[in-house]
Amino acid sequence: MDTKRTYNYRIEPRDVDFMRRATLMALVDYLLHTAGEDADRNGFGVRDLNLNNASWVLTRLAVEIDRMPDEYEPVRVTTWVSNITRAMTTRNFDILDERGERIAGAVSNWAMIDLSTRRLLDLHQLAAYDTMTQDFPLPAALPRRLATPHPTEQFTHTVAYSDLDFNGHANSVKYLQWVIDTLPLEWLRSRRFARVEINYLQETRHGDVLALLAERSADDCLYEIRNARDEAACRIACHMV
Amino acid sequence: MDTKRTYNYRIEPRDVDFMRRATLMALVDYLLHTAGEDADRNGFGVRDLNLNNASWVLTRLAVEIDRMPDEYEPVRVTTWVSNITRAMTTRNFDILDERGERIAGAVSNWAMIDLSTRRLLDLHQLAAYDTMTQDFPLPAALPRRLATPHPTEQFTHTVAYSDLDFNGHANSVKYLQWVIDTLPLEWLRSRRFARVEINYLQETRHGDVLALLAERSADDCLYEIRNARDEAACRIACHMV
Repeated sequence: MDTKRTYNYRIEPRDVDFMRRATLMALVDYLLHTAGEDADRNGFGVRDLNLNNASWVLTRLAVEIDRMPDEYEPVRVTTWVSNITRAMTTRNFDILDERGERIAGAVSNWAMIDLSTRRLLDLHQLAAYDTMTQDFPLPAALPRRLATPHPTEQFTHTVAYSDLDFNGHANSVKYLQWVIDTLPLEWLRSRRFARVEINYLQETRHGDVLALLAERSADDCLYEIRNARDEAACRIACHMV
Repeated sequence: MDTKRTYNYRIEPRDVDFMRRATLMALVDYLLHTAGEDADRNGFGVRDLNLNNASWVLTRLAVEIDRMPDEYEPVRVTTWVSNITRAMTTRNFDILDERGERIAGAVSNWAMIDLSTRRLLDLHQLAAYDTMTQDFPLPAALPRRLATPHPTEQFTHTVAYSDLDFNGHANSVKYLQWVIDTLPLEWLRSRRFARVEINYLQETRHGDVLALLAERSADDCLYEIRNARDEAACRIACHMV
């Protein structure tokens, strides 16, 4: 019997911006937290994979947002796995409000890597993982491969201690934060994000000096975050309404 | 009957650094979250005060840390109010582990301000708040008035969208993050914070370009965060062991 598993949260004061609505970073944090909890609960969490010197790596994420939830609002995140290939698995999310109405939908792609070689591992090695897939309509359009922008502006960020996660790499949510922090405050005040797509391409480490190359129009922006070797570490596309 | 009220948390993956231990920012976040919850529950929360166009402002904080909790570790925060004067109230915290052993103790000072004039309000206006005080030994030495450093190093930070809280000012925890992000990674790897004191002096806003003036020795650092008008916005002292 197919079911979406449900995780309950509340939008806390630390999750909101100056408009008392959840930031996009907070929403993505709840998605990633849900992914971690759900994988843990089913025996495929980071700690389980670590026992075999393996770990999950988020490779792509697409989030479609209908509205930003308010401070103190209870939200329900449902999640399910829809697809498993050799190199990639798809995990989906709905974010629902108390009445069951959709706040956002998201689709994420994950790979499993060997922690020593950083190489991809075959997901079919996780024999029981194959039983995890469930067949529901996708909650958002699949995250695409994003193109390199034709940049008109450039920003810089040096990866700091507070950007690091337990792997010693910059946390996935931080890339989004660096990009959003470059947007004019007036855009963030008068509009909201309708769709965000992220391609994670390379890990970044403490002290890495990153260039954020931005192509921006009235409603859309496309960023490429390049490392000191001039390689793309991440691309982010945002559509605002 | 005097009791300390208890709030339960777990150190989540997003709370830890590259050593898989809670960051100081995460610990302080749990303290502030607990303060907010406890004030709410007793009818003195920000939302209650907002009804009278008033709000809480954190003015000083001292945290004494015995050890940094690990990823996934359950922690229990107890809190109580110990003192109320016209201009200031003292809220205390213990952070305990599952066995009831102390992880950290903290003392915070709060003022109540009028949201229009930003002036201090008399705390005795909150008639029932006077019944909140409880008489337990202080969990840490009181936060002192910190002196201006004799700086040997200087850093800069521009207040970004992700630094803002629901008041449109930089979040209290962010001042600590800006300072800690300037410390050599090797210090953070090989030592831990034993005591941290913060004086909050002025609010800062989006786009404010701040100077972080640092006086640092082997075990101690004293920072002053100055705004563009060259006023001290915050001072932070850290003792590492």
